[in-house]
Amino acid sequence: MQKTNLVHDGDGWETVGSEMHFQTPHLSVATDEVRTPTSPEPRKWSVVHRKPAVVIAPLTAEGRFVLIREERIPIRAAIWAMPAGQIDESLEPDEDAVREVARRELREETGYELEPGAELVPLGHFFSSPGMTDEHCYLFLARPVRKSAAGAAHDATEAIVDCREFAADVVRQMIAKGEIRDSNTLSTWARLVATGEIFP
Amino acid sequence: MQKTNLVHDGDGWETVGSEMHFQTPHLSVATDEVRTPTSPEPRKWSVVHRKPAVVIAPLTAEGRFVLIREERIPIRAAIWAMPAGQIDESLEPDEDAVREVARRELREETGYELEPGAELVPLGHFFSSPGMTDEHCYLFLARPVRKSAAGAAHDATEAIVDCREFAADVVRQMIAKGEIRDSNTLSTWARLVATGEIFP
Repeated sequence: MQKTNLVHDGDGWETVGSEMHFQTPHLSVATDEVRTPTSPEPRKWSVVHRKPAVVIAPLTAEGRFVLIREERIPIRAAIWAMPAGQIDESLEPDEDAVREVARRELREETGYELEPGAELVPLGHFFSSPGMTDEHCYLFLARPVRKSAAGAAHDATEAIVDCREFAADVVRQMIAKGEIRDSNTLSTWARLVATGEIFP
Repeated sequence: MQKTNLVHDGDGWETVGSEMHFQTPHLSVATDEVRTPTSPEPRKWSVVHRKPAVVIAPLTAEGRFVLIREERIPIRAAIWAMPAGQIDESLEPDEDAVREVARRELREETGYELEPGAELVPLGHFFSSPGMTDEHCYLFLARPVRKSAAGAAHDATEAIVDCREFAADVVRQMIAKGEIRDSNTLSTWARLVATGEIFP
């Protein structure tokens, strides 16, 4: 599995071995043997490799966030979350390609699109579980968005059962009550609040 | 692999098959075949099983958060994050057991402890990557904490290279700048802010 630009050797990190155990189109599992800045003796670690992803916080001109409700098989539950999707390239794509995936996932999962002249505001990236996986997500605020004429176009493998607008303060309450409980939405919210993009 | 109390069949979810591909003491990977509330035809999905965990936001009486800097092999980087640790039981433990793990990880990873009479404030749970794994983390605010006489006691498999106190507003800036970029710390921050526990 090729390393992305974001996760790679250098600065005292050196991969001296990797034994692949299991591989599907969606993920792979290997035992990596790695020298670290503080450990010249290589350490062995189980690593799940997964494609990077994008998360989009779609905000309407009226200050309402667009969330989807999706059935998630690994947790046996349907949860409200911000739209998101994987980046199909095996190597880390450039910023334009990441933005194009964000626009596509926004359109396909919610049926919304950026208003003419609107921009995707980058909010950095995060790692979903850095003790287990190299999976990371690029975060964007999409503001303002509006319903597109074409509507949503759900992937056959997805099970999006609802899509609604929520006032920012309602999203805040859903987070406080634990009704929003996925790392994508919570991490994006932390960035939105910390940067002053919402509730400045 | 036994299901935890938080992730289980019921309410229209039914696991009709599961093929185990790979298993270590740290994680396992299976293809699950699952009926969902909207899909009576079972759907197949690769699922990574991992133990649940706790994340602790340690806050001193002076309003400073205690963060650790840990080398994370899957992402080939050392990052600043809130202390965290896995819950060793295979079944979901009761609340007292989860709190005990939180106290232990706080003590071992940071060398801090709750002041006498102080409590762990529960902040719910979150799923780290619900499209891939059943991994979930229980979040607690530990307030106030102080340095313990015993100091830290790092696990041999961990590589905690630093531990420092940061004013709440400095943590906010580190989140805004992308210097804090793990789902544990970002999700805990979202809950702390949304509940008004900090910056009310």
